Amino acid sequence: MNIYELPTPVVLVDLDRVERNVRVVANLARSYGKCLWPMFKTTKSSFIARLQRDVGSDGFLCSGVAEAEVLVSKGVTRTVMIAYPIADEWGLSRVARLIENGARVIVRIDNLRVAEFLSNGLRSRGFRIEYCVKVDVGYGRLGVKPEDVGLFVSKLSRFNNLEFVGIVTHQGQAYKARNPQEVEAVAKRSAELMELAVKSLRRYGFEPEIVGAGSTPTLRFDVREGIYTHLFPGNYVYYDRTQALVYGSASIDDCALTILATVTSIPQHSSGRIAIINAGSRYIERDVRGGLRGYGQLVEHPKVVVTRVSQEIAVLDISEEGVEVGEKVRIIPNHSCYTNNAVNFIVGHRGGKVVGIIPLDAKEDRVIEEELIGIPRIT
Amino acid sequence: MNIYELPTPVVLVDLDRVERNVRVVANLARSYGKCLWPMFKTTKSSFIARLQRDVGSDGFLCSGVAEAEVLVSKGVTRTVMIAYPIADEWGLSRVARLIENGARVIVRIDNLRVAEFLSNGLRSRGFRIEYCVKVDVGYGRLGVKPEDVGLFVSKLSRFNNLEFVGIVTHQGQAYKARNPQEVEAVAKRSAELMELAVKSLRRYGFEPEIVGAGSTPTLRFDVREGIYTHLFPGNYVYYDRTQALVYGSASIDDCALTILATVTSIPQHSSGRIAIINAGSRYIERDVRGGLRGYGQLVEHPKVVVTRVSQEIAVLDISEEGVEVGEKVRIIPNHSCYTNNAVNFIVGHRGGKVVGIIPLDAKEDRVIEEELIGIPRIT
Repeated sequence: MNIYELPTPVVLVDLDRVERNVRVVANLARSYGKCLWPMFKTTKSSFIARLQRDVGSDGFLCSGVAEAEVLVSKGVTRTVMIAYPIADEWGLSRVARLIENGARVIVRIDNLRVAEFLSNGLRSRGFRIEYCVKVDVGYGRLGVKPEDVGLFVSKLSRFNNLEFVGIVTHQGQAYKARNPQEVEAVAKRSAELMELAVKSLRRYGFEPEIVGAGSTPTLRFDVREGIYTHLFPGNYVYYDRTQALVYGSASIDDCALTILATVTSIPQHSSGRIAIINAGSRYIERDVRGGLRGYGQLVEHPKVVVTRVSQEIAVLDISEEGVEVGEKVRIIPNHSCYTNNAVNFIVGHRGGKVVGIIPLDAKEDRVIEEELIGIPRIT
Repeated sequence: MNIYELPTPVVLVDLDRVERNVRVVANLARSYGKCLWPMFKTTKSSFIARLQRDVGSDGFLCSGVAEAEVLVSKGVTRTVMIAYPIADEWGLSRVARLIENGARVIVRIDNLRVAEFLSNGLRSRGFRIEYCVKVDVGYGRLGVKPEDVGLFVSKLSRFNNLEFVGIVTHQGQAYKARNPQEVEAVAKRSAELMELAVKSLRRYGFEPEIVGAGSTPTLRFDVREGIYTHLFPGNYVYYDRTQALVYGSASIDDCALTILATVTSIPQHSSGRIAIINAGSRYIERDVRGGLRGYGQLVEHPKVVVTRVSQEIAVLDISEEGVEVGEKVRIIPNHSCYTNNAVNFIVGHRGGKVVGIIPLDAKEDRVIEEELIGIPRIT
């Protein structure tokens, strides 16, 4: 079956490109001696994770416990780091079960309350857990200041079932960069701050086994930084329009994820300047970085961009290049992680031929829905 | 089970509020003699639609064929209007099947190409279909200009299996209003333009059976406009922070949909000014209207607003009111339709007691996934 025969809207991934992207980055990390533990939130697919594992990733960064559980239960890996602090009983009990089943689970901590919560919860279950300190290198979200890391770890020493293994960061501010030069500056400054964090640790007598960081925009600079042992990019599997056109992480031909939609109208009032497609805000994020025009562009007509997004439909600017009513078109979105996160399955293809349906089996709401199976259904 | 015992993140709906909202609007429409055909895209739940039907809605507006199919097949209604033009074989064949099964399907047309496509496709199947012309009253998306409607319908007369039944619009520009006065001005101007469209029709000898319009912000003004026979609001079932605080459609206590999330950190670098929750861009839209501060606010701490949203987590501003790490909180999002559209199920509660799981059974990707059941799964 050809992709253009599919009902729309549907999310497609070009498996040839995915395999190439995964291999190129694995080789890059290997050649600089870095452990590549991909951030799993981009794909939430154990099938894609297995492709990454097969080219050398023996660990994964997960945004939550549900993602970690799926990777372990499907046999993709036994080493998972959980990106965001765990502060609820549900998460804790599932982490305990993962440890019990022999997985290596590394959590991230950035505040004493979470440390206390984890320590108490694991003590009563008789478990120890490894942790990294999340360091804030300027994103201003989670994290401890680099200069405070040594003191913070020393405070955590009293929790003797929490075992310090390293420090990690996410240079999320790279996503505010307007060009590759600004990305490079973020990467360089972040590495300097992580060095500062290591100095702070040594001042208190701690030596990190893991010094990790990661984002797809900074990846090509991060690999050259001696301070890092681990890198955690996620988006590089698919890339997207912003990675290609703003950050310079890849070319537009590396973008592997697209949304197949149907052109449903060229409204008369527009005198042929706009067209409507049947894919809306669930698939196409209203997020513009680095002065990019629009929210996505078409594979079939690269001068056509998405300029407005409603819930169920979006508007294309066709003043520079035309489309036909009834035509099926593929949108390269500004942000592929967002699109992937909207759906339960994606369609894999090679050269436009449909290969199969890839279920996004690690989505947290799937896991939670199973968890709630005992509650009555109202229909 | 209490809602705070649920795993997070999860989307909740307060069924007492839903029932009240649905009843109040049904009574309002009835008292002005209007047909209320709710826009179904807000909820995509046949259970909620049944509540609307039971208080008097004998028809529904659907964003696509998948939604219409579910309403008909689950026995909620036999009268469906499809909001956006149908321009693909998949949609057309399913519309034909609905008609064959005895449903009244009304499509909307705003361009000749779609008329031609529908007419050809239905002729070969031996069907007629009723249509409304979509009129653009200033939103600048789909539609024909009011003054051109008569000429447009006369052009469509040559398609003798397309039966003209009326004109419809969506005053989407109301969503750009910054206060109730601006909403009222949009409503008033839209009604004037729809009167102009009716005059244009009469000039060509056509009389509309349906003159429809609808949006939740304009609803309370639209009911007073003599020109309308049908109203199509959708959001009023749940309302949201923008409806309450910007458009004046409801009070914050009418908001029925919330996201239950866990506070996972109060990062040290912020000196207690921010907190992190485990619900991100899938649940909370980055959309601010009318100068609203933030993307959502907490039920438990109304002065706490969501100020940043990443994919998996979001940032709360807690400088005015505190939260605790580990605490479960409910977010009233700026836009409830968006949140509802992100998930496969919602949890219904009354006064904080869980009543049951409500599957969102009319989501198009569920329907498409079933359609693709013959394609191999790659896992």
